[in-house]
Amino acid sequence: MDGKNSGNTVGKPIRCRAAIARKPGEPLVIEEVIVAPPKSREVRIKIICTSLCHSDLTFWKLEHPPAIFPRILGHEAMGVVESVGEGVHEVVEGDTVIPIFLPDCGECTDCLSHKSNLCSKLPFSVSPYMDRDKTSRFTDINGETLYHFLFVSSFSEYTVVDIGHVTKIDPQTPPNRACLLSCGVSTGVGAAWKTANVEVGTTVAIFGLGAIGLAVAEGARLCGAKRIIGVDVNQDKFELGKKFGVTDFINSRDCGDKTVSQVIMEMTGEGADYCFECVGMSSLVHEAYASCRKGWGKTVVLGVDQPGAKLTFSSFEVLHSGKTLMGSLFGGIKPKSDIPILIKRYMDKELQLDEFVTHEVDFEDINKAFDLLLEGKSLRCVIWMKK
Amino acid sequence: MDGKNSGNTVGKPIRCRAAIARKPGEPLVIEEVIVAPPKSREVRIKIICTSLCHSDLTFWKLEHPPAIFPRILGHEAMGVVESVGEGVHEVVEGDTVIPIFLPDCGECTDCLSHKSNLCSKLPFSVSPYMDRDKTSRFTDINGETLYHFLFVSSFSEYTVVDIGHVTKIDPQTPPNRACLLSCGVSTGVGAAWKTANVEVGTTVAIFGLGAIGLAVAEGARLCGAKRIIGVDVNQDKFELGKKFGVTDFINSRDCGDKTVSQVIMEMTGEGADYCFECVGMSSLVHEAYASCRKGWGKTVVLGVDQPGAKLTFSSFEVLHSGKTLMGSLFGGIKPKSDIPILIKRYMDKELQLDEFVTHEVDFEDINKAFDLLLEGKSLRCVIWMKK
Repeated sequence: MDGKNSGNTVGKPIRCRAAIARKPGEPLVIEEVIVAPPKSREVRIKIICTSLCHSDLTFWKLEHPPAIFPRILGHEAMGVVESVGEGVHEVVEGDTVIPIFLPDCGECTDCLSHKSNLCSKLPFSVSPYMDRDKTSRFTDINGETLYHFLFVSSFSEYTVVDIGHVTKIDPQTPPNRACLLSCGVSTGVGAAWKTANVEVGTTVAIFGLGAIGLAVAEGARLCGAKRIIGVDVNQDKFELGKKFGVTDFINSRDCGDKTVSQVIMEMTGEGADYCFECVGMSSLVHEAYASCRKGWGKTVVLGVDQPGAKLTFSSFEVLHSGKTLMGSLFGGIKPKSDIPILIKRYMDKELQLDEFVTHEVDFEDINKAFDLLLEGKSLRCVIWMKK
Repeated sequence: MDGKNSGNTVGKPIRCRAAIARKPGEPLVIEEVIVAPPKSREVRIKIICTSLCHSDLTFWKLEHPPAIFPRILGHEAMGVVESVGEGVHEVVEGDTVIPIFLPDCGECTDCLSHKSNLCSKLPFSVSPYMDRDKTSRFTDINGETLYHFLFVSSFSEYTVVDIGHVTKIDPQTPPNRACLLSCGVSTGVGAAWKTANVEVGTTVAIFGLGAIGLAVAEGARLCGAKRIIGVDVNQDKFELGKKFGVTDFINSRDCGDKTVSQVIMEMTGEGADYCFECVGMSSLVHEAYASCRKGWGKTVVLGVDQPGAKLTFSSFEVLHSGKTLMGSLFGGIKPKSDIPILIKRYMDKELQLDEFVTHEVDFEDINKAFDLLLEGKSLRCVIWMKK
């Protein structure tokens, strides 16, 4: 199969290989699975390659709800449309697409507004099912239901995705770059570009230089930030960060008696114009807020903290500082309109994507991708379904 | 004296009447005081009228620091320049001006930026002195120092104000309207206009319909808001609010088992696009945040809570809701450039000011103005120095 369907799978279940998470934290098992045909407004996609994001790892390790097993994880991917269900006109068989966890129905008030990327019709959740009819399209060869993950489940040779979660892209885009835009890189670049709207000549501070933090740096660099301060506990991140425009580095373990925000105040005189929390620690959100420039500083929350985590601010400071606190889900990116812009900027050699891919493995070695991320050795590891 | 100085007071101390707060909560005493000539970059102003704001009341009642006595309160005023100190070129004797507690030095990064109204050179504080040399220009007839309030101290026939705190205005502006723009009305109107940037056709919720909350309604009305929901415990505020564009009213004591945010969600379906907290209660800030539309809702904090008060949000909600939290000091208004715009809009009969003035008294009756505000009977009471 080369992206064009022979026609004999349309409307029929497909038997193919998928990597199944059967128990929390145990290696994925590659098994044969049955992928049902797409229902109304759904698309069945042949996955070409998929990359591994921290959220896959989080849900793979999670022992309690919303964790659920057996499940097909994976949500950063690129593929080709195998067949479409009734009522799908946006893509046809053979189209190159990326599935995206955040929906874009194109019809609700949010999707029609330039101000929101939080679709109201298919609201984001961590449901284990397809989002319209709350059922699964996957079964194992014994007929047991396999659960979906983030409406994508890309650790399978074929998957079924709602058309609201499908973005058509330029077929010339290299698959192992396109998949990065499904989640992490878009989130970081978007947080600088869409959520914060970083202005030329400004100063940015980024708390946590993982893939998301580095993508924020890349977005800030593209927006023309003059100074990009990276904060991390790992000194090696500075060399890596330089590739994405990081100009200054603070090792938060080397600040002595000072807080990171005190160091940033000393470095900048006034504070950073924009601060991004990319780790998921409330204490870092507070440091980010304290590092912001009075008068106009923006603190953007990107990191996912533990359930129940709280952010506490002084009422006096909120009133008197002129600072803004905002969250950013998927970087404020509207999948169907903004992802093609990012792809064009990559093809025009403006947006850097290559530098995020530190490893590539075959589907058979998918557990190696997990090990590399667990050991902190990879930024993004691309998993090729069939090279 | 008619606004033109006879020339024989220039450079000399002026003996005139001022209302002095000698002890916390005790009636002001009108006494003769000595007002020193303006030093470098200062202006001596003959006050024409002044209005009473809640902050005057707060500092009059306050028993502990930053309270300090004896003090000349008052910070919403209109006057005429009597004389200027060395280095003042912006105004001359006879100019009509309003003194404003928030400085606008015109030189620092903040004052030169369109994004901030928080001057860095003369930072806002509740200092009891002039802000450059930290001394007072007032003494009583026994030679005792009288303290300044908010760099204005307008409960005096003459006061000395730093040029950074002086805005020149159209002399045609009625004094008893111009004074309102020194603090409360500008704060409310500005919060809608400058801080939140309310868009045409949107929904606004205002928590607390005092003068500030009603001024937010007025600002939102001018910005073209379609629906303005007022929240208060006093049912009479609805009739009053209608004059300023309030379309819906919620009596927060009549919500039964529901929270105000639940009622707002039911009324609007999706929540309000902008929510303004104008009371100074952390719990109301949380209700305001909960009342905001996901995807783009903005919560603006205007109310001054107790020192040490905290605002606590769920990290998950900040990340996933797409909402923004921001503070607004003086409504984001830049005194020297924005106040003349508000005055022009009043003179063009667009901005309503007349409706804020519920009472007018002579200077001799200044304690009556305090009583009216304490009893919740006045929105703004104008105090005329000499009718």
